[in-house]
Amino acid sequence: MPGYSELEKAINTLVSQFHSASADNSPTLKTEEFKGLLSSNMPNLVKGINTEQGLGEILRKMGVADGEGISFKHFWSLIESVASNQHNVLSQAGSSCNCILL
Amino acid sequence: MPGYSELEKAINTLVSQFHSASADNSPTLKTEEFKGLLSSNMPNLVKGINTEQGLGEILRKMGVADGEGISFKHFWSLIESVASNQHNVLSQAGSSCNCILL
Repeated sequence: MPGYSELEKAINTLVSQFHSASADNSPTLKTEEFKGLLSSNMPNLVKGINTEQGLGEILRKMGVADGEGISFKHFWSLIESVASNQHNVLSQAGSSCNCILL
Repeated sequence: MPGYSELEKAINTLVSQFHSASADNSPTLKTEEFKGLLSSNMPNLVKGINTEQGLGEILRKMGVADGEGISFKHFWSLIESVASNQHNVLSQAGSSCNCILL
């Protein structure tokens, strides 16, 4: 993708990976599809996905009702909480921060 | 960053670029710093930043009060609106979608 910035490519990655996780190009993901997305793509940042209890808790935090499909907006609220945590870590690191998280 | 997924690296890019835009490692950005971040890093996805009116409108949409610093949460609401727009485009493309946005 020449001509696009790192920031734009990062947004593209978030959107297209969510979209690709749907087998039938649906706007929402089934629970199993969502679980697959997190376990393959966010193994380090989201823990606990592999137990039924852990998965249920993550879905509740995202505001997903029982049996409901997972929308991009739900997914985004998860990413927001991960990103905010990381930003707090950087901010607290103060002036010695090297601005690298991972 | 070996061992991290594309999705995790994308989140890292969003967080660290926002953080790097602050000259003094402050948790919030000054208006000029924010303007610099958008014009260097989101030239294709956010338009109108170069006029005072356009910039004012973007800040209002993000919920930034006059003279207030721009927090990561403000920035995130902008990214959310850009990402949601892109996700809608993909969803409407239906089964012929190639899952590439840019």
